[in-house]
Amino acid sequence: MNPLFKEIRHSPLLWMLVFVPTVLVVEIIAPSAHTSLFVLAVLAIVPLAALLSHATESVAEKTGDAVGGLLNATLGNLTELIIALAALRAGEYMLVKASIAGAIVTNSLFMLGASFLLGGLRHRVQDYNRASGRLHAALLLMATIALLAPAAVADLNLAQGEAVSQKLSIGLAILLISAYALSLLFSLRTHKDLFVSANHDGKDAYGAWPTGLAVGTLIIVTILVALVSEIFVGSVQKAGETLGMSPAFVGFIVVALVGGAAEMAVAFSAARKNRLDMSVSIALGSASQIALFVAPVLVVLSYFIGPKPMDLLFWPGAVTMVMIATVTSCFITNSGRSAWFIGALLIFIYAIFAMTLYIVPPGVHAH
Amino acid sequence: MNPLFKEIRHSPLLWMLVFVPTVLVVEIIAPSAHTSLFVLAVLAIVPLAALLSHATESVAEKTGDAVGGLLNATLGNLTELIIALAALRAGEYMLVKASIAGAIVTNSLFMLGASFLLGGLRHRVQDYNRASGRLHAALLLMATIALLAPAAVADLNLAQGEAVSQKLSIGLAILLISAYALSLLFSLRTHKDLFVSANHDGKDAYGAWPTGLAVGTLIIVTILVALVSEIFVGSVQKAGETLGMSPAFVGFIVVALVGGAAEMAVAFSAARKNRLDMSVSIALGSASQIALFVAPVLVVLSYFIGPKPMDLLFWPGAVTMVMIATVTSCFITNSGRSAWFIGALLIFIYAIFAMTLYIVPPGVHAH
Amino acid sequence: MNPLFKEIRHSPLLWMLVFVPTVLVVEIIAPSAHTSLFVLAVLAIVPLAALLSHATESVAEKTGDAVGGLLNATLGNLTELIIALAALRAGEYMLVKASIAGAIVTNSLFMLGASFLLGGLRHRVQDYNRASGRLHAALLLMATIALLAPAAVADLNLAQGEAVSQKLSIGLAILLISAYALSLLFSLRTHKDLFVSANHDGKDAYGAWPTGLAVGTLIIVTILVALVSEIFVGSVQKAGETLGMSPAFVGFIVVALVGGAAEMAVAFSAARKNRLDMSVSIALGSASQIALFVAPVLVVLSYFIGPKPMDLLFWPGAVTMVMIATVTSCFITNSGRSAWFIGALLIFIYAIFAMTLYIVPPGVHAH
Repeated sequence: MNPLFKEIRHSPLLWMLVFVPTVLVVEIIAPSAHTSLFVLAVLAIVPLAALLSHATESVAEKTGDAVGGLLNATLGNLTELIIALAALRAGEYMLVKASIAGAIVTNSLFMLGASFLLGGLRHRVQDYNRASGRLHAALLLMATIALLAPAAVADLNLAQGEAVSQKLSIGLAILLISAYALSLLFSLRTHKDLFVSANHDGKDAYGAWPTGLAVGTLIIVTILVALVSEIFVGSVQKAGETLGMSPAFVGFIVVALVGGAAEMAVAFSAARKNRLDMSVSIALGSASQIALFVAPVLVVLSYFIGPKPMDLLFWPGAVTMVMIATVTSCFITNSGRSAWFIGALLIFIYAIFAMTLYIVPPGVHAH
Repeated sequence: MNPLFKEIRHSPLLWMLVFVPTVLVVEIIAPSAHTSLFVLAVLAIVPLAALLSHATESVAEKTGDAVGGLLNATLGNLTELIIALAALRAGEYMLVKASIAGAIVTNSLFMLGASFLLGGLRHRVQDYNRASGRLHAALLLMATIALLAPAAVADLNLAQGEAVSQKLSIGLAILLISAYALSLLFSLRTHKDLFVSANHDGKDAYGAWPTGLAVGTLIIVTILVALVSEIFVGSVQKAGETLGMSPAFVGFIVVALVGGAAEMAVAFSAARKNRLDMSVSIALGSASQIALFVAPVLVVLSYFIGPKPMDLLFWPGAVTMVMIATVTSCFITNSGRSAWFIGALLIFIYAIFAMTLYIVPPGVHAH
Repeated sequence: MNPLFKEIRHSPLLWMLVFVPTVLVVEIIAPSAHTSLFVLAVLAIVPLAALLSHATESVAEKTGDAVGGLLNATLGNLTELIIALAALRAGEYMLVKASIAGAIVTNSLFMLGASFLLGGLRHRVQDYNRASGRLHAALLLMATIALLAPAAVADLNLAQGEAVSQKLSIGLAILLISAYALSLLFSLRTHKDLFVSANHDGKDAYGAWPTGLAVGTLIIVTILVALVSEIFVGSVQKAGETLGMSPAFVGFIVVALVGGAAEMAVAFSAARKNRLDMSVSIALGSASQIALFVAPVLVVLSYFIGPKPMDLLFWPGAVTMVMIATVTSCFITNSGRSAWFIGALLIFIYAIFAMTLYIVPPGVHAH
């Protein structure tokens, strides 16, 4: 276990692992301390997400290009998926939907914006590979359009009820997963070279682990994330009430920031090193993956887990925020250059969304 | 009539001409076999549209640049126009509006996407002229914004009623036709050279016909399309009910695919030959023409044909789909390069629209 | 006062100064001639705005780069601000909001479009600096998204009432003003060189004035604009009724055109001289400034002036028009080249907006 401990020593993020036993103990001795449990669970998930991300990459590296790419692509948002599954089991559909929409917005506005800002504070003007940025942006744009089209287009009224929206969501989930399969075929096989830089995500941050350690860590950390996510979801509603946060706000902002913390660390570090290509591909790639893979998988799993199937119809405000975030990040990455102010403006838009969600939680329109 | 028969022999599409007499005969002997008539009419319109398109180009070539360009520009969507006129006479306003919106979406998502996909399956990465693609995209973007602006902006309620929306639609039709006249001045006179490649649309597919044959074909086929369109519109409602398709779905998807079949054949063939410029200009050019010419002409003609004047206010889902389709195709063609997956994603978005329209037909909001 | 008179002699716009005493006299002798007062006030504001703009630039030039840039940036839309303040005092909130939204739309569609059209009528194809155009476009895009996000995202219903929308608007105003401060830091200090061409706005039109004359003119003309604005706002409602114009139409179209007349004169003259960079930066820069500075300042001042605080929630049609205008102008300036038809299309979209607003004024949704 030498490399694991070495990493914990070097990475300040991993010191936060101390919150994992803490939250598990507090859950046993004070199961009704919802606000403390909520805060501790958030703090515990951050380092676990970082470990999960690194373990995935280590396993991916050992298994060769194709399988490794597949692993990275499917497990890259494992933390978001596990949290959403815990919420699904608890029937917290608003939290699940908000965390899907929020992950896309957080990745394409906050992660991208903070990368531009942090990179821009060190480098006056940063130029990066437009071709690769555009490819990711095009993929993200179409992935989110595909995800949101039914919510934006369907003229659903109450009379038609749930049967229709279920049918629509299952059809959509099948189309999204097919598109995702094709995107893997495209990025891992037929046009692998266009995506090359994105494969070096983790290397700069840490060294690779031996396979045994990596697989072991992957399994154990997945179980830990699942345990902590249960506590998180169990405490979120009461804690949210205490802290004045609606389920939509918690899902959209808190879950998205917590689940993406590990990727953000890598993206920000790349931006500081003037490697904005990598930051852009992590931010936009992760957002596409949420839309094309995590969201439809959750719909399918909702038939087996949880009190009733979940549809994919987002509330109008979420549709607007996701579309604005995606179109903005596409437009911004299209130019291939950046300065600190561009990043600052992306963060401002994110802050405005967060503020609006906090002050005006979505009402009865959300299913 | 030698060249006409030679073409029919060589082109598998034209073998479908056999459905023209078939549908006319079935209409006489079994006028209540709505579903059969609907299917036969669809099958009959496809080859007629191909002939119409070729005859138009042959006439255009003989008449010299300016008049020829004008002919191509006004008769290029003649099939869509004739079908819409038949629907207008029958008072099927939803079908007319859906076929206008659907033609824009089908051209800018499906025709463009399938061109990229078919081209990309043969060529790894396809580069094309960005300048020309951008010009067409800018024109399309502004044409659709102009078409949709009143529907998107007007805060119409029932109390204001039809008088206001009529007034708005007539004003809009006048503005759109003026913009169309200016676009012809621009593309055929002042900046002709920028659009050069688009003038070779049909040449690769067939040779040019003698003028007599071309004009004769143009007249006869127009009459045939009109006859078959009558049967199509007469059977569509009952057949739609049997096949589970709403008028909106039929207009948006079926009419648009059928009416655009001929142009698609040319666009796809160009893409296979790595001439994506031509595919892009056909797809986006045809979509602009629907918005700037076909739509306002139908509004004006609705004052003379049909039970009452038609307005140009689309239902909210149509506005969203047209805007998404246009913005997406503008963004995609902006990059000047393509690979098969980009095409696949455009088709996925189209499939999602079709699925949504099929499962959730637009409700009472549509006038 | 020699240079001032010399300018009045040379500039046909300044002959219109004769309307200033006229409107003041008519207000005294015939205070109920609302329609005449309205027309005279409009005619009087145009030359005052031109003088104000020139005086600001003259002062800015004398005070050196940093302070001068700040002056230009804050006083550039002084006319719009004074008119809006007069409307705020009179409690005409619809007029204020319409003039904010209208100034953004008028600058990014009409001013830009007319520049492209006037430039394109003299020069076949105009190429301009894409990098600078893009930077301005990115800034404008994000400024308007920030301004509109709450209106687009918030799912406000009547039950939540004014308290929530006040809270949201104050939070938004603080964020927008912070973003504006950062944008000044960016454009006047850290990345000054990227914006260089925008600093020569007025030089071509007139020579610089001595400081005394400039400061004196600034003070006197500001007072005159304030006086005329009072008359304008006092007559607008009754005159609007007579002329068939709603407050929304007057604010959106009339105030925006009148307030921007001086900037338009400079932008159009630059376009004729094939200096489209300058036209683009004036048009988009002024639009950003309205969103980031004028709008939040009006919210803050509404707590001290006027019957009750103003919120920043626009009616749905305004949100749509501003978003369409911004996205369109971003897409158009992204290409870095222009021809007359592009300008004509931008003006067509503006005309469609104006027509829609005239025929269908926004209803009870507007607060």
